[in-house]
Amino acid sequence: MSALDELQAKIAELKNELELQKSATRAARERIDKMSAEVVDSNPYSRLMALQRMGIVKEYERIREKTVAVVGIGGVGSVTADMLTRCGIGKLILFDYDKVELANMNRLFFTPDQAGLSKVEAAARTLSFINPDVRIETHNYNITTVESFDKFLNTISHGGIQPDTPVDLVLSCVDNFEARMAINTACNELGLNWFESGVSENAVSGHIQFIRPGETACFGCAPPLVVAENIDEKTLKREGVCAASLPTTMGITAGMLVQNTLKYLLNFGEVSDYLGYNAMNDFFPRMSLKPNTQCDDRHCQERQKEYQARPKVIAEECAVEDDTPLHETNEWGIELVDDSPPVAESTEASKEVATGLRLAYEAPEITTESVPTVAAAANVDLDDLFAQMKAL
Amino acid sequence: MSALDELQAKIAELKNELELQKSATRAARERIDKMSAEVVDSNPYSRLMALQRMGIVKEYERIREKTVAVVGIGGVGSVTADMLTRCGIGKLILFDYDKVELANMNRLFFTPDQAGLSKVEAAARTLSFINPDVRIETHNYNITTVESFDKFLNTISHGGIQPDTPVDLVLSCVDNFEARMAINTACNELGLNWFESGVSENAVSGHIQFIRPGETACFGCAPPLVVAENIDEKTLKREGVCAASLPTTMGITAGMLVQNTLKYLLNFGEVSDYLGYNAMNDFFPRMSLKPNTQCDDRHCQERQKEYQARPKVIAEECAVEDDTPLHETNEWGIELVDDSPPVAESTEASKEVATGLRLAYEAPEITTESVPTVAAAANVDLDDLFAQMKAL
Repeated sequence: MSALDELQAKIAELKNELELQKSATRAARERIDKMSAEVVDSNPYSRLMALQRMGIVKEYERIREKTVAVVGIGGVGSVTADMLTRCGIGKLILFDYDKVELANMNRLFFTPDQAGLSKVEAAARTLSFINPDVRIETHNYNITTVESFDKFLNTISHGGIQPDTPVDLVLSCVDNFEARMAINTACNELGLNWFESGVSENAVSGHIQFIRPGETACFGCAPPLVVAENIDEKTLKREGVCAASLPTTMGITAGMLVQNTLKYLLNFGEVSDYLGYNAMNDFFPRMSLKPNTQCDDRHCQERQKEYQARPKVIAEECAVEDDTPLHETNEWGIELVDDSPPVAESTEASKEVATGLRLAYEAPEITTESVPTVAAAANVDLDDLFAQMKAL
Repeated sequence: MSALDELQAKIAELKNELELQKSATRAARERIDKMSAEVVDSNPYSRLMALQRMGIVKEYERIREKTVAVVGIGGVGSVTADMLTRCGIGKLILFDYDKVELANMNRLFFTPDQAGLSKVEAAARTLSFINPDVRIETHNYNITTVESFDKFLNTISHGGIQPDTPVDLVLSCVDNFEARMAINTACNELGLNWFESGVSENAVSGHIQFIRPGETACFGCAPPLVVAENIDEKTLKREGVCAASLPTTMGITAGMLVQNTLKYLLNFGEVSDYLGYNAMNDFFPRMSLKPNTQCDDRHCQERQKEYQARPKVIAEECAVEDDTPLHETNEWGIELVDDSPPVAESTEASKEVATGLRLAYEAPEITTESVPTVAAAANVDLDDLFAQMKAL
């Protein structure tokens, strides 16, 4: 029976090896029912709950009641989902219809072994492994088709962590206008707040924009030319040419997006209406854009009327502001210098911007001196606008 | 022989399962000898090489000749190493003596299954898996002990990718003063450029500082009080209290650090001397600090004399500046608005800052109005300084 013994030894050996291999991929920790502030190495939430002790956030655990939809799980969206997962968000709803490729490896999050998997599936596996407490839902389709748009609309209006509630926030991390306009249409119709984000084709600038239907300019209020003129942006792509990208710019843009998401959801600090990033000189412009009363989107116009009709005191209550001094409770009694830069507010400037854009793109040889309207009106970063037009 | 058949079937089954498990952990791609700009899904460098076509970087492949030492593989250092790896850096040298804990999971990069592993080992495995083209060297010790400091000094002065050359840059991502001072001492002695980085204990601010010995203020030129007075910072820690941290602030700080590293190594854009980040209001101060002629570090003083003695033209050549217009070669002929914010330069302000610091910390009940020197002289972010003093 030496042959049988040998085979049984072989089986024992294989079982052992299999166990070792499995240990590398099994769920790494049990679920945690309640966030604890206990300072022990085994507590994945200690450093987040410490935000309460530091006087930054009043009730950090409330993050578990929040639902965020992330549309586009690419260079910005995947890092966004990763950050929210590590922060212990209640529920994440991921939308994408693309597959992971080796060409994505110059950005954070995905790994080469995931090449060929759908982005939402690959992301969901990694995120659940990192934090099994987060509820993750995936939607593997293109939200811009008629049928899928309805599914998208239905999901964000009923997908909240409480039964039959909308999500708390939609984060757009897509790379094309059609998808941005779809999100804009849905959020205007539902009156849902969302953040638009983007990075430029040359990889050295990015931005985020907080859109509160009726209160701030929507994505359609100052449409980029390519959208305004119904040009199919696919015709702008050329064979053998691809956009540049950097993990740095993508990571910073995702960081700005999630930081402002946390400020909004957990009610601390000032949420930026628009925050840009120019990597060439580390310049970060901030501004606010009022809605365009002539906006083509009728839901935007309705939301604007509703917003105007709201009694001012209610509007103020709804505004995401926290007037309590920073670190009021810090035990050192140190006060912060108020180093807030003045925020440029472009009153009704959206029309002018759209005009400026048209001018800039119709006359590509134009110098910056010839388009003072654009530069002066809203501190617009041409690099960004250019990126918006040419985004993939 | 039915028993034998059964066993052999079992073996075949186990082998198959093992193969599947292994496929999840094996090296995901082969090494690539030469970076290619070819636009295919299987090329992990296409989006980086596209920076050349976009007119941002002249010779992106030169990144393969560069060596960067990252000291501290925590919330900032791990993401920094991840970004550099995905950018295809030639060689990374990682220093840390800590282990991964579940309490680190609220920041990017490490996964719960790595709890208990040394940070450098866990990082090296993940990074090699992501990009097998990067040469990764790990050093698992505390650089502040006398013996280890010599090893550290030797490694950064001879660890370059070319035999017997220094590294191209040292990135400090440590969380304590002793380690920062060790790096400062080493880089002053060797005349090596380095970036200091840090995040505040309350998780809502961060900064990076580019230190070029003799040319800009070194870390010892304006020492925080805790260092100036030789207080052991360990005595500042209290039982059951830990610093807060956020993946957003850490990710943005790492992004600012690596973006400026890329600008420096590949010679594009403007490298910031100091870039801060205040998450509460999305404010990003920039400034420059000149060296302190009374600096306690004698190597700093020597480097200052050397720098002063250098003929101005050479000094200018060495300065990291690129005066060519942005996107000179872009095919759309669009020029950028020069939206560079003025950079505050604090001439010989370092002594005053040190004095201001002393004042601020000696009188904790003081209001901001009483320390105009600090605020006016160098636009110093109290939050940051506070964080520097209390950093873990």
